[in-house]
Amino acid sequence: MVALADRIKILAFDVFGTVVDWHGSVAREVATMNLGVDPGAFALAWRAGYQPAMAQVMERGEWVILDHLHRRILDRVLDDFGLDGLAPAERDRLNRVWHRLDPWPDSVEGLTRLKSRYLICSLSNGNIGLLAEMAKNAGLPWDCILSAENFRRYKPHPDTYLGVAKTFAVEPAQVMLAAAHHGDLEAARNCGLETAYIERPFEYGRDAPKNIAPWEANLLHASSIVDLARHLDC
Amino acid sequence: MVALADRIKILAFDVFGTVVDWHGSVAREVATMNLGVDPGAFALAWRAGYQPAMAQVMERGEWVILDHLHRRILDRVLDDFGLDGLAPAERDRLNRVWHRLDPWPDSVEGLTRLKSRYLICSLSNGNIGLLAEMAKNAGLPWDCILSAENFRRYKPHPDTYLGVAKTFAVEPAQVMLAAAHHGDLEAARNCGLETAYIERPFEYGRDAPKNIAPWEANLLHASSIVDLARHLDC
Repeated sequence: MVALADRIKILAFDVFGTVVDWHGSVAREVATMNLGVDPGAFALAWRAGYQPAMAQVMERGEWVILDHLHRRILDRVLDDFGLDGLAPAERDRLNRVWHRLDPWPDSVEGLTRLKSRYLICSLSNGNIGLLAEMAKNAGLPWDCILSAENFRRYKPHPDTYLGVAKTFAVEPAQVMLAAAHHGDLEAARNCGLETAYIERPFEYGRDAPKNIAPWEANLLHASSIVDLARHLDC
Repeated sequence: MVALADRIKILAFDVFGTVVDWHGSVAREVATMNLGVDPGAFALAWRAGYQPAMAQVMERGEWVILDHLHRRILDRVLDDFGLDGLAPAERDRLNRVWHRLDPWPDSVEGLTRLKSRYLICSLSNGNIGLLAEMAKNAGLPWDCILSAENFRRYKPHPDTYLGVAKTFAVEPAQVMLAAAHHGDLEAARNCGLETAYIERPFEYGRDAPKNIAPWEANLLHASSIVDLARHLDC
């Protein structure tokens, strides 16, 4: 493990679900708006539009930042929930909830410890402005914010994972991606990155615990970002 | 001034010369290498290749990051100084001195104070990896690192200044650029940004004080980044 800890130079983190609790944060904000809908179901419906929207952008070979995709999906979800009367200014405000997501309780401590030894960056499909405001709001101590927007490709496109290595002029094997999603990690491994799985059993809410069983392909499996710091002697 | 301080949302900073002392830092590193050359003259010669190299990249419509331009210029400067025997690995190491530049004495305190009220970011022609390593090394507390590399255009191209506003979804007039260079500030004003001049009389060394007379066109004129924080009630 010491050899690994020395070889890795850059720790890149998936953000939604891995560092911040999107489900709890969106549900809480929806609850405060008293819209008369199930806040958890609303959050899940909004997030469910995320992968298809990005896939469509990539298929078309265009580039649209996530703030704009979130807004398109929101309009549809409001319709589905019978809330088509919500004013545009309120929609804009609600859409920016993704800039205000709360970190998991261990995220700030874990990142701060890892930062003492590694260069830590985001690698998220969130746009740069979203990630910067989220970091400021949540106190995430990134050395550098990297986003799909830097590469004009959404994960799991290889340009995103390889883009991290290129940005810092290191080999892919000197970058480790930490994420709570096996698909993201698998795509990173296919590009030569090292991978660490972070358990986030309640990413989809307390009522819908996620399977967090280890996959052997991941070099590290951690119960939290603080646990990842422990694995890496930080 | 209160109205201004409230209207501005984003403070973007030029970096080389404005936040960090490139001349002193490069000269010091060259001095420690005992190459038998005048360290200050070497630093000036290296930097003198900077504007023409970027202009050539822009004219050709290509994109080359600053690390690579610095290396090309370094090879020529070593030749000019009769040091063509320096080994490639030593050239690579010396080239990364731009990742290790020291901040001016007031930079970290000034940025930290401004960060309490504004989103603070770099807007530098340095590449993202260079700026991230510099920030980590010097303790620069950026909320977000923005670089010419984000926009694949070097300053003073309008895409860089307008790119800051676009990244954070604000109007150009809600962004203020702080820089020690009137040309940079003028180009930003032409894009609708507010501007603050920072006095850095010794940017080119103690022996060559720079004219730091105010230009009326700048909304603010500050003797340091701490003084800028004072102007903006931080």
